[in-house]
Amino acid sequence: MAVEIVFVEGGVCAPKGFRAGSAYAGIRKVERDDVAVIVSEHDANAAGVFTRNAVKAWCVRENARRLHQGMARGIVCNAGNANACNGEKGRAADEAMAEAATTALLGPDHSPADTFLTASTGVIGRALPVEKAKCGAAKAIANLIVGADGSKAAAKAIMTTDLVSKETAVEVITEAGAYRIGGIAKGSGMIAPNMATMLAFLTTDAQVDSNSLDAYLKDAVEKTFNCVTVDGDTSTNDLALILANGDSGILISEGDSLFAEALATVCERLAKMIARDGEGATKLVEVNVTGCKGDAKRVARTIAESPLVKTALFGNDPNWGRVLMAAGRSGEPVHVEETTVWLAGHKVFEKGLATDADPDAVSRAMRSEDVEIRVDLGWGDAGTSATMWTCDYSFDYVKINAEYTT
Amino acid sequence: MAVEIVFVEGGVCAPKGFRAGSAYAGIRKVERDDVAVIVSEHDANAAGVFTRNAVKAWCVRENARRLHQGMARGIVCNAGNANACNGEKGRAADEAMAEAATTALLGPDHSPADTFLTASTGVIGRALPVEKAKCGAAKAIANLIVGADGSKAAAKAIMTTDLVSKETAVEVITEAGAYRIGGIAKGSGMIAPNMATMLAFLTTDAQVDSNSLDAYLKDAVEKTFNCVTVDGDTSTNDLALILANGDSGILISEGDSLFAEALATVCERLAKMIARDGEGATKLVEVNVTGCKGDAKRVARTIAESPLVKTALFGNDPNWGRVLMAAGRSGEPVHVEETTVWLAGHKVFEKGLATDADPDAVSRAMRSEDVEIRVDLGWGDAGTSATMWTCDYSFDYVKINAEYTT
Repeated sequence: MAVEIVFVEGGVCAPKGFRAGSAYAGIRKVERDDVAVIVSEHDANAAGVFTRNAVKAWCVRENARRLHQGMARGIVCNAGNANACNGEKGRAADEAMAEAATTALLGPDHSPADTFLTASTGVIGRALPVEKAKCGAAKAIANLIVGADGSKAAAKAIMTTDLVSKETAVEVITEAGAYRIGGIAKGSGMIAPNMATMLAFLTTDAQVDSNSLDAYLKDAVEKTFNCVTVDGDTSTNDLALILANGDSGILISEGDSLFAEALATVCERLAKMIARDGEGATKLVEVNVTGCKGDAKRVARTIAESPLVKTALFGNDPNWGRVLMAAGRSGEPVHVEETTVWLAGHKVFEKGLATDADPDAVSRAMRSEDVEIRVDLGWGDAGTSATMWTCDYSFDYVKINAEYTT
Repeated sequence: MAVEIVFVEGGVCAPKGFRAGSAYAGIRKVERDDVAVIVSEHDANAAGVFTRNAVKAWCVRENARRLHQGMARGIVCNAGNANACNGEKGRAADEAMAEAATTALLGPDHSPADTFLTASTGVIGRALPVEKAKCGAAKAIANLIVGADGSKAAAKAIMTTDLVSKETAVEVITEAGAYRIGGIAKGSGMIAPNMATMLAFLTTDAQVDSNSLDAYLKDAVEKTFNCVTVDGDTSTNDLALILANGDSGILISEGDSLFAEALATVCERLAKMIARDGEGATKLVEVNVTGCKGDAKRVARTIAESPLVKTALFGNDPNWGRVLMAAGRSGEPVHVEETTVWLAGHKVFEKGLATDADPDAVSRAMRSEDVEIRVDLGWGDAGTSATMWTCDYSFDYVKINAEYTT
């Protein structure tokens, strides 16, 4: 049997020994589940990657401490309140939510090692209502579901301005047997590289020690979530967490390239879902930069974050001059005489001059849900290359963000 | 008589010995004057500051050469076409426009030293129609007007998506006599620090040698135009040019703090006009950062360019959490426990906690044409401070930029 990676149903519940669930705690005004839990049947190895924003939410600060032992029993997440910038009471609220989930699952006499990791998303600076969070965590544990429906419920509960819930999973078939990796995520606004700039929860029934798990996760995040930008804003709460419970019986050693590829596959699928569902987005935009004498990722990021490029994409305006402008202000070496630009598959600029591409044809090609911007800076194979995913800027981006807290 | 700086009418024609004019050359589709000229009655000392974008329009590349001699007779500017990224023919078009202005003013036998500086603004990557540019330059010279009406005509002709024309002037009264400094500018989109990210043309009848003029201009630009950001995008065409013809008879030596202050006053007034008239803007936003252990300007710029902060400003949403988020992702040290935030005059966050400021009252205060965001990072007088001017992000920003080239 050939070694392969195939997509399967079930999200975070696709791997063996995981359940998930959700509940409405009243933390957000709209009556829609706002607490999610993901639980392993027994302690799992755990790792996390966290926002690089200097202003960090309590979940980010506390998980760093909890992950010190490299183990966790589950994840509890609330939506509607970021639990950030709200003083020491925020720390207590975070701890209370984690403790409520553990007690609901195992009773009051659980071992101190049975730890829930936490996550929060929503408005910054407000007190997280402690009783609501505790009650929500307990209810979500009571609502735990085996199989795909559990993952779907959790994926929906963590949404804020997201329009669609995001989940995926793969099965990895090896000669020794099969294992699975699943994930759910939320994104939308405040999505930018350096880290992860959203919430992602990953599960696997492969057996991976926590140090290796940490390395695999960091690597996958760098190549996927850190290549997504919606608006350049990095949140106080961004994190990616992974639990590995070993229930497949398949042992993953250090440097297992198949596991690395499978994890990156799950993360990339989630990352693209996040970009496509950027606030108000009408399309997923892939920016590819090649042949760069300097840092191609910086060029790709500057193009992907340029408001003028993003509004042109929304308008299907083949205004490639803005792409050149953005590349030029990236700080990396750009020589127009050596630069070629493709928009939605059409070569529009070559070595200092516009091509004879028909603007109407380019505009028609841009009216797709998937648009590629490709810039070759002429340095050939000696140059660096990078990919970024983003979305366009629409009226709805402004509408959603002008009225968020009201 | 006390030494003082007073605002006067007349824009670039307020100083003695300057005329300005405009004409319609058909470079832009809408029938509105699209060529402007500013002329000194005799050769003037000249200096310029140019975009730091690696991709530079022909006017930027050619002016650098022309300014080598530190003298110019005038400025000719077209709107509707950036004359950038369009090959060697763009260089010839730039030269033809400058030459047409000189010949129209002085006849075919003019001295090679009688140089016109150039500027272009508009769509990137299209051929500048040479005959139209030449004809427009000649017509604008024929339309030269003495006094305020000349400045008004030129200020209007250089507008692209600007909603209002921008001009100002000051008279500086010294014990030795009076001199004037005037300016016009255009801005709107693609406005960001590092340089100047718009067009500004300045005139003075003070007598300043070209080396000093260059130093005064760089200093003024750094403190004013480089503190404006609309969308973080730096154009290929941005420049500020100044002509000093000496007609007041007042000699300015090196290190004349009054001249420096007067020039900065003119530039700051124009810079604020640009921020207030950012594409789709409904308000001028001043971001003040104090007590920063690192680079306060970087913190202020990150706040001023955050799409999430700017959309909240549009919606009068007192969402100061986004201000903290933006400060936190600036890369500079931010400790929320030592940070205080004011929104529109209300203290909303103090040392790690929300204050009891009434969100409705803050929102009402934000419904002004002038809103201040102030962030104190708690490092006291030992810290750095900085000011940035920007505007909010509205539906109209998206609308204007989604449909620009069509």
